[in-house]
Amino acid sequence: MRFDHDHLLGIEPLAPADIATLLDLADQYAALNRREVKHTDALTGLTQINMFFENSTRTQASFELAGKRLGADVMNMAMQASSIKKGETLIDTATTLNAMHPDLLVVRHPQSGAVDLLAQKVNCAVLNAGDGRHEHPTQALLDALTIRRAKGRLHRLSVAICGDIAHSRVARSNIILLGKMENRIRLIGPPTLMPARIDEFGVEVFDDMEEGLKGVDVVMMLRLQRERMDGGFIPSEREYYHRFGLDAEKLVHAAPDAIVMHPGPMNRGVEIDGELADDVARSVIREQVEMGVAVRMAAMDLLARRLRVRRAEQSDKGVMA
Amino acid sequence: MRFDHDHLLGIEPLAPADIATLLDLADQYAALNRREVKHTDALTGLTQINMFFENSTRTQASFELAGKRLGADVMNMAMQASSIKKGETLIDTATTLNAMHPDLLVVRHPQSGAVDLLAQKVNCAVLNAGDGRHEHPTQALLDALTIRRAKGRLHRLSVAICGDIAHSRVARSNIILLGKMENRIRLIGPPTLMPARIDEFGVEVFDDMEEGLKGVDVVMMLRLQRERMDGGFIPSEREYYHRFGLDAEKLVHAAPDAIVMHPGPMNRGVEIDGELADDVARSVIREQVEMGVAVRMAAMDLLARRLRVRRAEQSDKGVMA
Amino acid sequence: MRFDHDHLLGIEPLAPADIATLLDLADQYAALNRREVKHTDALTGLTQINMFFENSTRTQASFELAGKRLGADVMNMAMQASSIKKGETLIDTATTLNAMHPDLLVVRHPQSGAVDLLAQKVNCAVLNAGDGRHEHPTQALLDALTIRRAKGRLHRLSVAICGDIAHSRVARSNIILLGKMENRIRLIGPPTLMPARIDEFGVEVFDDMEEGLKGVDVVMMLRLQRERMDGGFIPSEREYYHRFGLDAEKLVHAAPDAIVMHPGPMNRGVEIDGELADDVARSVIREQVEMGVAVRMAAMDLLARRLRVRRAEQSDKGVMA
Repeated sequence: MRFDHDHLLGIEPLAPADIATLLDLADQYAALNRREVKHTDALTGLTQINMFFENSTRTQASFELAGKRLGADVMNMAMQASSIKKGETLIDTATTLNAMHPDLLVVRHPQSGAVDLLAQKVNCAVLNAGDGRHEHPTQALLDALTIRRAKGRLHRLSVAICGDIAHSRVARSNIILLGKMENRIRLIGPPTLMPARIDEFGVEVFDDMEEGLKGVDVVMMLRLQRERMDGGFIPSEREYYHRFGLDAEKLVHAAPDAIVMHPGPMNRGVEIDGELADDVARSVIREQVEMGVAVRMAAMDLLARRLRVRRAEQSDKGVMA
Repeated sequence: MRFDHDHLLGIEPLAPADIATLLDLADQYAALNRREVKHTDALTGLTQINMFFENSTRTQASFELAGKRLGADVMNMAMQASSIKKGETLIDTATTLNAMHPDLLVVRHPQSGAVDLLAQKVNCAVLNAGDGRHEHPTQALLDALTIRRAKGRLHRLSVAICGDIAHSRVARSNIILLGKMENRIRLIGPPTLMPARIDEFGVEVFDDMEEGLKGVDVVMMLRLQRERMDGGFIPSEREYYHRFGLDAEKLVHAAPDAIVMHPGPMNRGVEIDGELADDVARSVIREQVEMGVAVRMAAMDLLARRLRVRRAEQSDKGVMA
Repeated sequence: MRFDHDHLLGIEPLAPADIATLLDLADQYAALNRREVKHTDALTGLTQINMFFENSTRTQASFELAGKRLGADVMNMAMQASSIKKGETLIDTATTLNAMHPDLLVVRHPQSGAVDLLAQKVNCAVLNAGDGRHEHPTQALLDALTIRRAKGRLHRLSVAICGDIAHSRVARSNIILLGKMENRIRLIGPPTLMPARIDEFGVEVFDDMEEGLKGVDVVMMLRLQRERMDGGFIPSEREYYHRFGLDAEKLVHAAPDAIVMHPGPMNRGVEIDGELADDVARSVIREQVEMGVAVRMAAMDLLARRLRVRRAEQSDKGVMA
């Protein structure tokens, strides 16, 4: 099992083989999580610190459980908005924590690039749990694992990503990952919620659900990120649901065995019909959550193995961090 | 040791034999908690999630310590008031957590019945840590254990429950438990703080402390739940203490060896005289807290054993959750 | 290894030999913390509760990591300001927690003396994590360890403590510790930020940095504690930095190999120049944080050993706590 990355900052730096390695290991952890005893010793003696500069009950819980099940000493830091006004302070916080010798640092931050910056200042493995509009790699990986398990493969699929693409790091990481694995990607949403430079991604763009969903294997709905919309057009929920909310009627245009996904938390009746979300014949939304823990266990395990190798190398060179 | 319940949602569904089984095991855990090494492996590899939709430093701490001492991986979820406006969202939260494969879910919720509803949506063991005005079963069990240890038995005792009965899930669970064990129950308090349909419980009602306390073996004081009183009569603290607050003078009417209880946190000088609360010859208030951890360890241990049996049965039938 | 104290409430009660014992053990834990596997079993089966009545992300994290790495079951209690209005309530909280049988209680409290009071009400080991303007013993110990490692000794050094001495428990604990170890202490700061009775400490006082820093081996900067200044003179940050902020120009008056310290979090450009703070040739600020975890591990380990002895003695006498 080869995985040569020191950090998991985004999908961008990963090769298709890295993604496959990670998902294969995550499959094994998914099996473990369904067993009675869900605890292993992969990270025993290591310290994991979760630094969430944005609240996220769900993602933080997933990383916390992942670390505890791997036997790590896990600590959550409540990072208050007040202490992060200057970039300077972020670095101070990071170097302070680094002095406590964590092995794994899980970071969510409202500013794009903040997690990359932080990773340069510490000598442990950093996992990006979402930074601004940039990346959210573990979300894309858990989506990929869910697709692979439902469809039997992760390539040559036609995937529609629907809704508020412009404000979504989830969309961005998914577009990169699905592109690397040679899938066809369609973005569906109102032009005002599309990113400015869409061409670079090699995707097709639609502003009509019926047309955009035609024959797709996977339908990924996104959450309306009202909190990220600074000014500009904000659609009414009712109008948005009418045109872009997923319901059984619109889904009819997708492939007959198309699966429905949503990163959560859902706004039922805004992005998606509540009944469809709960329909286990079509919706894999619960499995996405389940795979989240497995993917995070796999990512932390691989990064810890790499960390051991790096430290052994440094130690051979007589360099002590 | 037989305990056939999948959840601990209330005292209502428990048979007297269930209660005895639970208290016997709790006695063993109480002994363990007084030892140097308080850690066991009864829940090793299992995941416990505490979801408190109402703040409760004391009860949450008791469940957290109980789980950690049993070796579980314990996670606290900060459930903000904002995310629980709709019942719908409670279910979404529950099914999301369920997808992370917890084994034990400890839930406190401001709405009566919310924990029962949630238990129907998950496939792990659920413990009710207090729901609205409905039940608070572990409180009644720790009170029962405290009484049994102080009095040598849990039947044919005369127990006075005093104060704000109407708003108290603690009173309700205690009335049910003490009734099942064939004790005589007296409720004492102003008529405005008595529940509407009092007859169904088979209790005696008093609005005078002297009369109500006459000869009782146990005096259970309740906390004034101002936060639960929506409109209606709210007594002044001074007047309330004068008529219904417990002090040495009023206690003289109880049996000479009567014990004094309070679920905490106390309003000293409102429900109870501070000196009396601290008088270890009469007050067992500290022991109630101590038994709280032991009872929760016993409850979680028994539910985990039952969970293993259920899963083995499902597995035999080829059903995978 | 001899350490006869039941609690760590301050530096005041410690003998020089106690301090040496504690730092020697902390040196060992510092080495452990730089290893791959940082987990030991020194506190396995014991329960550590952190009660912070004042927020302190950094100190609480340091104690939490220390306990987890020693194998304790660690629980953080969020003590809200609202629940601590009366001293009475502090005692109720303490005796309630004590009934849950913690072994180690780590307490921070805004009132001087509150932690001492609390220690009298519980039968476990109490560590003062800072009380009002009184003491902050683990900070002084981690500073001492950092000095000893940088200078090779902890006696006959000339140490300047600079800034807001009057409001600083860090300064107070450091003055006591450094005095016990026979160092020369100089306090530098505006007269308005000096304690009223300075003579009792046997220190020299300066209100000029150039004069005060002359030839010192160690420069300890303090944080401006605006939140502790009730009325009275509050200097402008710019003026303060001009006169008392440490920069390379002022540091030139200290010994050529003088080290620079700060307890954090720093106000860069107020108490200290940012570049100087990051200059690893002079600044040991990061090492202070690192030594913080090690010192807390040593303190908790020693107190737990002492606790075992006390309990064995009580048990021999037939006394059960």
